[in-house]
Amino acid sequence: MRILLVGAGGVGDAIAKIAARRSFFDSMVVSDYDLARAERTVAWIGARHPKGAGRFVAERIDASDADSVAAVAKAHRITHVMNAVEPKFVPSVFAGALAADADYLDMAMSLSEPHPERPYEETHIKLGDDQFALAPDWEKVGRLALVGMGVEPGLSDVFARYATDHLFSEVDELGTRDGANLVVRDDDGNEIFAPSFSIWTTIEECLNPPVIWEKERGWYTTAPFSEPEVFTFPEGIGPVECVNVEHEEVLLMPRALDARRVTFKYGLGNEFIGILKTLHQLHLDSTTPIQVRSAEGPVLVAPRDVVAAALPDPATIGPRMTGKTCAGVWVTGTGTDGNPREVYLYHVSDNEWTMREYESQCVVWQTALNPVIALELLADGTWEGMGVLGAEAFDAAPFLELMARPEADGGYGQPWGLEDRLA
Amino acid sequence: MRILLVGAGGVGDAIAKIAARRSFFDSMVVSDYDLARAERTVAWIGARHPKGAGRFVAERIDASDADSVAAVAKAHRITHVMNAVEPKFVPSVFAGALAADADYLDMAMSLSEPHPERPYEETHIKLGDDQFALAPDWEKVGRLALVGMGVEPGLSDVFARYATDHLFSEVDELGTRDGANLVVRDDDGNEIFAPSFSIWTTIEECLNPPVIWEKERGWYTTAPFSEPEVFTFPEGIGPVECVNVEHEEVLLMPRALDARRVTFKYGLGNEFIGILKTLHQLHLDSTTPIQVRSAEGPVLVAPRDVVAAALPDPATIGPRMTGKTCAGVWVTGTGTDGNPREVYLYHVSDNEWTMREYESQCVVWQTALNPVIALELLADGTWEGMGVLGAEAFDAAPFLELMARPEADGGYGQPWGLEDRLA
Repeated sequence: MRILLVGAGGVGDAIAKIAARRSFFDSMVVSDYDLARAERTVAWIGARHPKGAGRFVAERIDASDADSVAAVAKAHRITHVMNAVEPKFVPSVFAGALAADADYLDMAMSLSEPHPERPYEETHIKLGDDQFALAPDWEKVGRLALVGMGVEPGLSDVFARYATDHLFSEVDELGTRDGANLVVRDDDGNEIFAPSFSIWTTIEECLNPPVIWEKERGWYTTAPFSEPEVFTFPEGIGPVECVNVEHEEVLLMPRALDARRVTFKYGLGNEFIGILKTLHQLHLDSTTPIQVRSAEGPVLVAPRDVVAAALPDPATIGPRMTGKTCAGVWVTGTGTDGNPREVYLYHVSDNEWTMREYESQCVVWQTALNPVIALELLADGTWEGMGVLGAEAFDAAPFLELMARPEADGGYGQPWGLEDRLA
Repeated sequence: MRILLVGAGGVGDAIAKIAARRSFFDSMVVSDYDLARAERTVAWIGARHPKGAGRFVAERIDASDADSVAAVAKAHRITHVMNAVEPKFVPSVFAGALAADADYLDMAMSLSEPHPERPYEETHIKLGDDQFALAPDWEKVGRLALVGMGVEPGLSDVFARYATDHLFSEVDELGTRDGANLVVRDDDGNEIFAPSFSIWTTIEECLNPPVIWEKERGWYTTAPFSEPEVFTFPEGIGPVECVNVEHEEVLLMPRALDARRVTFKYGLGNEFIGILKTLHQLHLDSTTPIQVRSAEGPVLVAPRDVVAAALPDPATIGPRMTGKTCAGVWVTGTGTDGNPREVYLYHVSDNEWTMREYESQCVVWQTALNPVIALELLADGTWEGMGVLGAEAFDAAPFLELMARPEADGGYGQPWGLEDRLA
């Protein structure tokens, strides 16, 4: 396996660092628009994991240009393109991989467009629609695009498949639930507001109309922040206010799994919800440039870019952050024994541990873990497929086994949890 | 009396329009950095009040340059400079008036600077300090600077003087209280967030440490939004959440009036307080330029300027606004009869009326009314003085009488109210 990693930002950097401990691949080209960033990742691996570091090489790439992606991929005889850039570059990286006759993985899918008249009732262009539309092209050449293979979507889809296969005879709801108790402090120890993930992307996913799937109704949308629910997360995180958010799982899971309802709720908490509502109310979420005075005369800037620029870079807050983040799926329905069952399948990532082991903050690191496991399963043939597929299309058991198995025994040493909530 | 009006923004425009109905002055030069804006005001007066419109002339001025202010004042043999620009230009307009040997009026005073170590406990440079420091220069030449002569400060100081002179034998608290029930709607009739006053100035006054005066302690500061209190406003406005805000009254009233405590609370309401807190938390209140990406490459913009640019211009929302704004002073203490007394002296401005009569929204119009009345009292000699003084230094009764007297009888037709709250 020869991997082209596109993007050496927070998640891309962590993917390379996690992969550096594994032997399943022959080479990984770490590429970025900013070559220095890719080189920094490769240098870190050289210093921390000198054995096998020769498999890593840095390259410059333009993710917005399918030809650039294909050219780098061909030059390195790439078998798998691992997309780790912003979702707006999905179409070009996706096309570049196909053009280079390589398999493809990403962690977020092509973007949606709300319904022009009834945005909070009906879907229009859904997340991933543009990718699924090209599935026949991938099938024709026998190549696989494994889409949405981060933690959410990704690990959440693995959990959903596992629950459907092994824990339930009939599934009522597949409800992805994500929550954290992360706190960021300034140099004086005071708590500050510093989102652990790109505010640009967070605004995008939280202010887009959330999508829900129901067996009788199909996909439909609601108003942002709908159906608030206090969900209690494990391992000391505790209760967090969760609301509907547009997310890939809701588009992916119903394609392969049988359930009455599929939802995604994000534990934004009341404070963050309030902040996002305020940004929207003040038009500061807008991506349309407006005229603003500056010392050099009027300039055009997008308010959302200003919001992002005014906040700390999420990639830099790791050392000032404490706490854990939890990703998982809450499944309700009828157990294999015929009795009502309610389980939460989850994985927790602790910032202290990810910083110490990988110099990577926990939200970013947790996202990066899963595509590396998936690549390993593809490398040894445990997972195989063609066309455009999400993780729910593959057997979940070997994924979870490899993830949980101790590192000393050849696994990733990342246990996952199962809470039986009616027990 | 020959008046130089500096600034033809919302308030300046309304000052000229209100003055156009009065005969106490010989001429008014309406000046602005943007000459077209001054010309628009003069043209409106020409169309609506052709009789006497010949007294108005438009001029270009640079309010940031004292020499420019003095030159325009001298060229027109100005007797009174009426400052109606942003408070950051107070020092230059103030100096320009003195250089031109003219009297001076403003509606907001020179800006404060918080205490470098204990910003929320102690004052440092207070509102108006820079102006009061120059009082000897004004006294020496026998000229008057009547500072803080809008509605708040201004009318509030008149009310405070009136209560002290005529209603109380001993004053416990002089508490300015400002509240409104204004609502702005979009074309579809939905309520939108659109502050009725410059968001730039609102952020400045609301996020600066609020100042309080107490007889035993002198001036001191607190944290923003301190001491929340629900105050019930008259004429159907009803209860509004009010919090401490830095304001000139607290610096002005104790210089001339005897009270145990002087406060200013602004009826921001919970929603607006939340918005301001969020802007602060996200560093979007900052006036320090930050680097932001744009189509033309990185640019430097101040986040607060972006917030202002993303919101509707307060001068343009009048036609889409309904409701009333109330300015007043809540006075507690011992009445002239020796019994405990609590009164609220107030003036209400109705947007529907100000739009119809003046094409000026009510908050802006109410601010503009008071300096015109003050100029009239100075023109006929009812008010006279020298040095740097606030409205509380002058007899309040003739001001309130002229304000309330019907227009048909030569007054301004703006009644004020007195609520006895212990009655």
